[in-house]
Amino acid sequence: MPASPWPAIDGIAYGGDYNPEQWPRDVWPEDVRLMREAGVNLVSVGIFSWALIEVSENVFDFGWLDEILGLLHEGGIAVDLGTPTASPPAWFFAAHPDARAVNRDGVPMGFGSRGMASHSHPAYLDASTRIADALAARYAEHPAVVMWHVHNEYGVPVGEDYSPASVAAWRAWLRTRYGSLDGLNSAWGTAFWGQHYGDWEHVGAPATAPSTLNPAQKLDWARFTDDRLRACFVAERDAIRAHSDLPVTTNFMANQHTGTDLWAWAREVDIVSDDHYLWAADEEGEIGLAIAADLSRSVGGGKPWILMEHSTSAVNWQPRNVAKRPGEMARNSLSHFARGADGILFFQWRAGRSGAEKFHSAMLPHAGADSRVFREVVDLGATLGRLGEVRGSSVPAEVAILWDFESFWAQDLEWRPSEDLSHGERIRAYYEALWREGITVDFALPGHDLSGYKLVIAPAQYLLRQADADNLNAYVAAGGTLVVSYFSAVVDENDAVHAGGFAAPLRPALGIRVEEHLPLREGVTTTVRFGDDDLTADVWHEHLVLAGAQTRGSYVDGPGAEMPAVTRNVHGAGVGWYVSTRPDAAGLRAILDEVLADAGVALPGIPAGLEVVRRRGADADYVVAINHAASDLSLDLTGTDLISGSDAAGSLTVRAGDVAVVRTQRAASGGGR
Amino acid sequence: MPASPWPAIDGIAYGGDYNPEQWPRDVWPEDVRLMREAGVNLVSVGIFSWALIEVSENVFDFGWLDEILGLLHEGGIAVDLGTPTASPPAWFFAAHPDARAVNRDGVPMGFGSRGMASHSHPAYLDASTRIADALAARYAEHPAVVMWHVHNEYGVPVGEDYSPASVAAWRAWLRTRYGSLDGLNSAWGTAFWGQHYGDWEHVGAPATAPSTLNPAQKLDWARFTDDRLRACFVAERDAIRAHSDLPVTTNFMANQHTGTDLWAWAREVDIVSDDHYLWAADEEGEIGLAIAADLSRSVGGGKPWILMEHSTSAVNWQPRNVAKRPGEMARNSLSHFARGADGILFFQWRAGRSGAEKFHSAMLPHAGADSRVFREVVDLGATLGRLGEVRGSSVPAEVAILWDFESFWAQDLEWRPSEDLSHGERIRAYYEALWREGITVDFALPGHDLSGYKLVIAPAQYLLRQADADNLNAYVAAGGTLVVSYFSAVVDENDAVHAGGFAAPLRPALGIRVEEHLPLREGVTTTVRFGDDDLTADVWHEHLVLAGAQTRGSYVDGPGAEMPAVTRNVHGAGVGWYVSTRPDAAGLRAILDEVLADAGVALPGIPAGLEVVRRRGADADYVVAINHAASDLSLDLTGTDLISGSDAAGSLTVRAGDVAVVRTQRAASGGGR
Amino acid sequence: MPASPWPAIDGIAYGGDYNPEQWPRDVWPEDVRLMREAGVNLVSVGIFSWALIEVSENVFDFGWLDEILGLLHEGGIAVDLGTPTASPPAWFFAAHPDARAVNRDGVPMGFGSRGMASHSHPAYLDASTRIADALAARYAEHPAVVMWHVHNEYGVPVGEDYSPASVAAWRAWLRTRYGSLDGLNSAWGTAFWGQHYGDWEHVGAPATAPSTLNPAQKLDWARFTDDRLRACFVAERDAIRAHSDLPVTTNFMANQHTGTDLWAWAREVDIVSDDHYLWAADEEGEIGLAIAADLSRSVGGGKPWILMEHSTSAVNWQPRNVAKRPGEMARNSLSHFARGADGILFFQWRAGRSGAEKFHSAMLPHAGADSRVFREVVDLGATLGRLGEVRGSSVPAEVAILWDFESFWAQDLEWRPSEDLSHGERIRAYYEALWREGITVDFALPGHDLSGYKLVIAPAQYLLRQADADNLNAYVAAGGTLVVSYFSAVVDENDAVHAGGFAAPLRPALGIRVEEHLPLREGVTTTVRFGDDDLTADVWHEHLVLAGAQTRGSYVDGPGAEMPAVTRNVHGAGVGWYVSTRPDAAGLRAILDEVLADAGVALPGIPAGLEVVRRRGADADYVVAINHAASDLSLDLTGTDLISGSDAAGSLTVRAGDVAVVRTQRAASGGGR
Repeated sequence: MPASPWPAIDGIAYGGDYNPEQWPRDVWPEDVRLMREAGVNLVSVGIFSWALIEVSENVFDFGWLDEILGLLHEGGIAVDLGTPTASPPAWFFAAHPDARAVNRDGVPMGFGSRGMASHSHPAYLDASTRIADALAARYAEHPAVVMWHVHNEYGVPVGEDYSPASVAAWRAWLRTRYGSLDGLNSAWGTAFWGQHYGDWEHVGAPATAPSTLNPAQKLDWARFTDDRLRACFVAERDAIRAHSDLPVTTNFMANQHTGTDLWAWAREVDIVSDDHYLWAADEEGEIGLAIAADLSRSVGGGKPWILMEHSTSAVNWQPRNVAKRPGEMARNSLSHFARGADGILFFQWRAGRSGAEKFHSAMLPHAGADSRVFREVVDLGATLGRLGEVRGSSVPAEVAILWDFESFWAQDLEWRPSEDLSHGERIRAYYEALWREGITVDFALPGHDLSGYKLVIAPAQYLLRQADADNLNAYVAAGGTLVVSYFSAVVDENDAVHAGGFAAPLRPALGIRVEEHLPLREGVTTTVRFGDDDLTADVWHEHLVLAGAQTRGSYVDGPGAEMPAVTRNVHGAGVGWYVSTRPDAAGLRAILDEVLADAGVALPGIPAGLEVVRRRGADADYVVAINHAASDLSLDLTGTDLISGSDAAGSLTVRAGDVAVVRTQRAASGGGR
Repeated sequence: MPASPWPAIDGIAYGGDYNPEQWPRDVWPEDVRLMREAGVNLVSVGIFSWALIEVSENVFDFGWLDEILGLLHEGGIAVDLGTPTASPPAWFFAAHPDARAVNRDGVPMGFGSRGMASHSHPAYLDASTRIADALAARYAEHPAVVMWHVHNEYGVPVGEDYSPASVAAWRAWLRTRYGSLDGLNSAWGTAFWGQHYGDWEHVGAPATAPSTLNPAQKLDWARFTDDRLRACFVAERDAIRAHSDLPVTTNFMANQHTGTDLWAWAREVDIVSDDHYLWAADEEGEIGLAIAADLSRSVGGGKPWILMEHSTSAVNWQPRNVAKRPGEMARNSLSHFARGADGILFFQWRAGRSGAEKFHSAMLPHAGADSRVFREVVDLGATLGRLGEVRGSSVPAEVAILWDFESFWAQDLEWRPSEDLSHGERIRAYYEALWREGITVDFALPGHDLSGYKLVIAPAQYLLRQADADNLNAYVAAGGTLVVSYFSAVVDENDAVHAGGFAAPLRPALGIRVEEHLPLREGVTTTVRFGDDDLTADVWHEHLVLAGAQTRGSYVDGPGAEMPAVTRNVHGAGVGWYVSTRPDAAGLRAILDEVLADAGVALPGIPAGLEVVRRRGADADYVVAINHAASDLSLDLTGTDLISGSDAAGSLTVRAGDVAVVRTQRAASGGGR
Repeated sequence: MPASPWPAIDGIAYGGDYNPEQWPRDVWPEDVRLMREAGVNLVSVGIFSWALIEVSENVFDFGWLDEILGLLHEGGIAVDLGTPTASPPAWFFAAHPDARAVNRDGVPMGFGSRGMASHSHPAYLDASTRIADALAARYAEHPAVVMWHVHNEYGVPVGEDYSPASVAAWRAWLRTRYGSLDGLNSAWGTAFWGQHYGDWEHVGAPATAPSTLNPAQKLDWARFTDDRLRACFVAERDAIRAHSDLPVTTNFMANQHTGTDLWAWAREVDIVSDDHYLWAADEEGEIGLAIAADLSRSVGGGKPWILMEHSTSAVNWQPRNVAKRPGEMARNSLSHFARGADGILFFQWRAGRSGAEKFHSAMLPHAGADSRVFREVVDLGATLGRLGEVRGSSVPAEVAILWDFESFWAQDLEWRPSEDLSHGERIRAYYEALWREGITVDFALPGHDLSGYKLVIAPAQYLLRQADADNLNAYVAAGGTLVVSYFSAVVDENDAVHAGGFAAPLRPALGIRVEEHLPLREGVTTTVRFGDDDLTADVWHEHLVLAGAQTRGSYVDGPGAEMPAVTRNVHGAGVGWYVSTRPDAAGLRAILDEVLADAGVALPGIPAGLEVVRRRGADADYVVAINHAASDLSLDLTGTDLISGSDAAGSLTVRAGDVAVVRTQRAASGGGR
């Protein structure tokens, strides 16, 4: 671990990926000049440069990199130096065709796009650590370099690998995990469908087969893939550490790629980095953005985090790549900032004329500097320049939502009771209800110390280990409020149904038995009676049997008719709620209003369209207020807006589409770790 | 053939698949105790146990199987002993990687799910007969064992095989079929697209190719695949027969998998077994169930049949796995029974905690014995216990619907005139119209002796051999009534259009020429004038030219406007109807009303929602009345309800959701074979 | 080039593909008799006959072909003799398994359907030129043979090939194209995503990869594939030329397959041939037909052209194969004729009983000669017999629409700004607007001499070379009117965004800058204010900045709100219009009304439903008037209808569904090349 995890940059980091090798040298000085105009202080260099640095195996050409690092340093721009191992060169694949990743049908993934090689082939491991070592050896002391950026988006576009090298590593991994074949046979339940193994060499990858594969095998395969990718990262990081104590990071894709367990990954980095792109079809993409930001902060557990990539306007890889409208880039950036990001970077600095991503927007678009986008980039740089004092402050939260990658992997396997079950959809629904209330959320694992939270929500905890269930039961007994959504606590770590039936491990906290799942047919909606209200619900019912809980909502029609739908259970000093169906947004709001009252979480009372988040500094709080609406909105607040410099005395008005960052008095309390 | 085809079980067989190897031994005594509580008298054991019985090649471990068979026998539970060849062990695939089935893209189907090996690889044939022999040798005299259950659902999940072993067998099969290459070239019409073969070794499987494959080749491939699978069955059966004369069966998937020609398969088994699962998206799944049951009875041609698998509640492999509602399991079970099933079994006894089917319901669910499902299982066992006297009775029918697997295979090939053509849809439509009237149906082949039926319907006889057409023409000439739906009698056994044009072979019976097919565009509906009624029709018109028939319905609009749509032809002593379009349900009902009058089939006049089927015993008839509606329904009947024990004098009321099985006087007549 | 490109046939050619090898010899004399009855004077023979002519490698059997050519000649039927190389025999693939084409996943495309071998494998090149040589050597002097028909529909069903032979040819092709790896690296922009090549042997085909492939590589791959296919054609053509100076053709699929650059192909043939099939789901298939016909004429640049294949009624390969209604076949045929076709042929003469296309209609259907279809075939033959004097006349046009295969290839690559972008849809929209007005259109390349046209439209010129842009700018400067639709002039020949930004090369003509693309979300419609009208538009907006142009339409709402939507720029003596959105049909009509006025193109003023095209002969014009409507329609015209023989004095009435071909005075002028 380096002495200080924050790189040597003043204030908030601002910049983007910079790929000078795509341009003639005479463009480079203009780049530096325009970066300075925009207030850029950090760029990521070299992320896709392997073929130009190691021009053939073990033959290096650092000349151009020396030159551009020198130019950047002269311009006062710090460098986040990348290892280019996300895209090995043509010569690598030509020399090592068996190091290509292979898909589940046995087709090797060839060269010509991007994507790493087999995560388990010795040739790739050798080559990737060799170039990491070479870069660190050469540039550890370079004055421009302030941090290291290993690889790019591990797991994307390819993570899984069915090559022989991977299968060999898989068998070794399983031997370590289970010790004996008896252990594996038991964990995987191989008595089902005659899958018993009598020899380690008979265990294969979950490749194409006549029918659905063993789910425990597939779950372990997901664990193995994540583990191997992380081993690749650690090998590169350690190769760098041998030369440098600058912070090392790799860029995650929180809330966009669930194939890597970011809780584990965050432990291995010095600084959390996240890439986030709006989903263009979603007219409220800022909610998905907020989830990604809160997750990035949460997995770091207090480590600094940087928004390593987002876009100034449209991306290029979605079905319809909607451009951002004026002001939207700033609102996006400052929402990340509000949720803890101390750096705001983009992919990429200058739009590339060639290649698969030429239609991806950039800080400097194809239209050049005389353009709306570049003018807004300059404005944003100026804004961030005024926010330096906020850096390092924290983000308090009273509510935690459980986010468990293993549970997602298990839930997303084949042959579940209904294809309408979606872990992402449920998390978004609960998160969105709180977002609209202005309640800040942390994400957490079910095994975490949750005692700092007033409310814990489990929207998608399909897989729940007994020990983690014990933790949740204890959290409630000690006074916490827990809300559990349907299809939770169904299986253990081997995707085996819990003894005692669905949800049995949470019976203490919830006071119910789930006797049977009752999925609804496509498009069917039903009614739930909740207090005096009729809520609309679809997708799912359950046959609940009370075992201590009280019924708070009942099914009026559908397969659950006349049975409990929503229950509340007092357990020790706390309360456990269970919601066995999918209410619509209004219905979920009605239920959560009672839950929040139980938990003692106060509603901030902000107007619709205004996103408000509080960062907590050592001496002051900073309230970030983002107006997503088409009209001016106000909230009660006293302090100074760091962006405009104006003072608010009791009331702050944020203009339509605008953002304020108000230094204000430190608030009394607030949850979170 | 064993002396008596019915196994040594008293009354109706009741039980399910039992997989004790998935559970610790201490669970086994509880299983037997609960089976007894539920009235179970037959369980299928060992279906997926290969890896635990033959632990490595030719090394057997029968200990656990001895133990469980002993326990079951002590508990009075008979055993249907399976050969586990539907899922070879890991060691088999490791030792014989070239015995894996291969898909049409050349990808071998690996281990890890379930599914047989290549149906033509010597290693698989050796191994499967070896274990069948070993089981039969050991357990032929075991007192618990009353019948043999070979394999599981042949053809599912994999039947087709493009491996070299399969291609070699295919060439041999073609040589036998055609004798000479001239015969093959002529049958396949290889002059088209330059596909002439000059050497047997040049003939390949219909694997991935640049365009649509030769349809006659694909049709023969379907025949070959079916033939090879059946050869696998016969080899195992004969291995068993060398030791035992107990009845042998294998479980079909009537109405759910059309890849095996069940008419041919039924000739090879002693007892017909069927697996049936409701299609959850269908709110009237009981109609598809009735088709499956009637087909199972029909293919057996008088052999006893058993419902070998169905589900107590939801399955796990459909998009949305709807759970059965209270009473539904009993109604489903008794509908099979009404249509001739003398055994009602489930997959499976105890819900498995692990594996791909953990969300499949079971007799003993995850929730345990204190559950709705188990209580209904116990009730059903008691009900069946009262119905023993019905066993062995037959099911009379006056109407036959043609069901010809070869025709389905041919119709489902590529490049047909409209993708809205569906053999299954047309059979369901005609069947459903009769089901709603309470008219019991047999299924038959067009070459069968049909003289016992008043009415024969051909909803999907696309492929019709000339000899079978002659049989149908003779059936009409002798006084029968025949209804033929569009796109029938189009091709011969080689998928070649009949000389003389579409439907030419049925010109005697139908008195029409089909000059041209007139498919409709997607979503277009048209009107047919039928007597005084305007019927709605879609999907298909034809250009009909009368050649003796009378027009009974005419196209009002659409491509057939002003031409005949529905015709009636008197041929000898009988009548041939032709329906050249797809009427909606009301329209088909209107047409069938006239057809039934022609045929002299009386309408039973039962209320909507009540399913009524008559089984005919030696001394009495048994009327099964199943109320699918939400209100009580009555029908005219005198007799004793074997379930409730109460008597009906002239009128029987069946309560909403309930079932009665009434012993009554033997009715006068009734068709069928 | 042969002395005269038109074959030795009197009048308009009429006939179809004739595959006598599918029938016994006793059918052949009947075929000839019925052909004579139908007025057939040309049939294409031998297109799929390789296996029956070269029965094994280098062993020929010409006997049957001698016989049928003799019969045809005796019957006065001329022969278009095919080379059968679109479907090599089974023995070829058995002897040369590595000559199979391979798909991008590495799966070889096997035998059993149709489709050529690898376009680059020496064995295929040898075999295909050998049989072309053998046929030409034997039949060059045969009196029946009047022209040569090489292959069939190059590129369909398979053109791309990822086999080793193809990859080797690809590397050689790239070396020739680029000379050096520096050239390739620069053209492909391999600095992006680290794709730099240091060795020619490292360059591969764009096969399956983890993510999107290099678009310039894929664009070159399309060029290479087209080039190799054309080389195959040229090799066969030259083998024939060594023996014969009869005209050589190969049948295109204009407007149905865009994989071959027909401008380049048309230079290599003596006669342009086209195959055209209606798209059945389109209720106005005659518009797509007209595009295909106009394109066939345009690519020929004055060469004669023949409709080599169309259908008498339904085809068999679409989802729903709608049959043609009475008169439709004649209208289709005469629309091709109106647009310059001097031959009207069908696939095929006699409907085949077997094979994948048995449900394709034919001149002689399954129903035989006593059928609607054959009667209409006979009528059409008589009609064409009256039109001989029209042969060789031209088709004048004042308007050109740009049609550039390279631009289509580039636009259809992955990761474009919106999947709603479609080059075909935009061309159809502009073409259709003019078709409804009765304005005849040529197609052209942007580099052509366009000075003969009053108006040039670029609906889908995504890829535009700078030199071609210069040509368009000069065209406007010299007085032309140019209309450019959105997403045009975006990239250069390497799919690299033009320096200066989107549309920069056309800035002189258009007077605008396209600062940013603004794709709309799915289903969103917006309003454009155009003069006094509110037009509806969807799919796409752009952020336009005026650079000399005037705003003629503005966005009212959506992402472009308040910005220009439609602009008009005076440049030199001409005008350049830009339409930055997708107006609906009425909106496009409103815009084009102004454009046509600018261009001085007069509206013919024909009634809706009447298609009118003028052919220009040496001494007279011939006006073809096709009534697609259900009522009689009239137009102002004086002359003699060659079909009916009646005279029109000032006004011609065409009955519903009917066609007239009126000899009239030569009109004064008319554009075109």
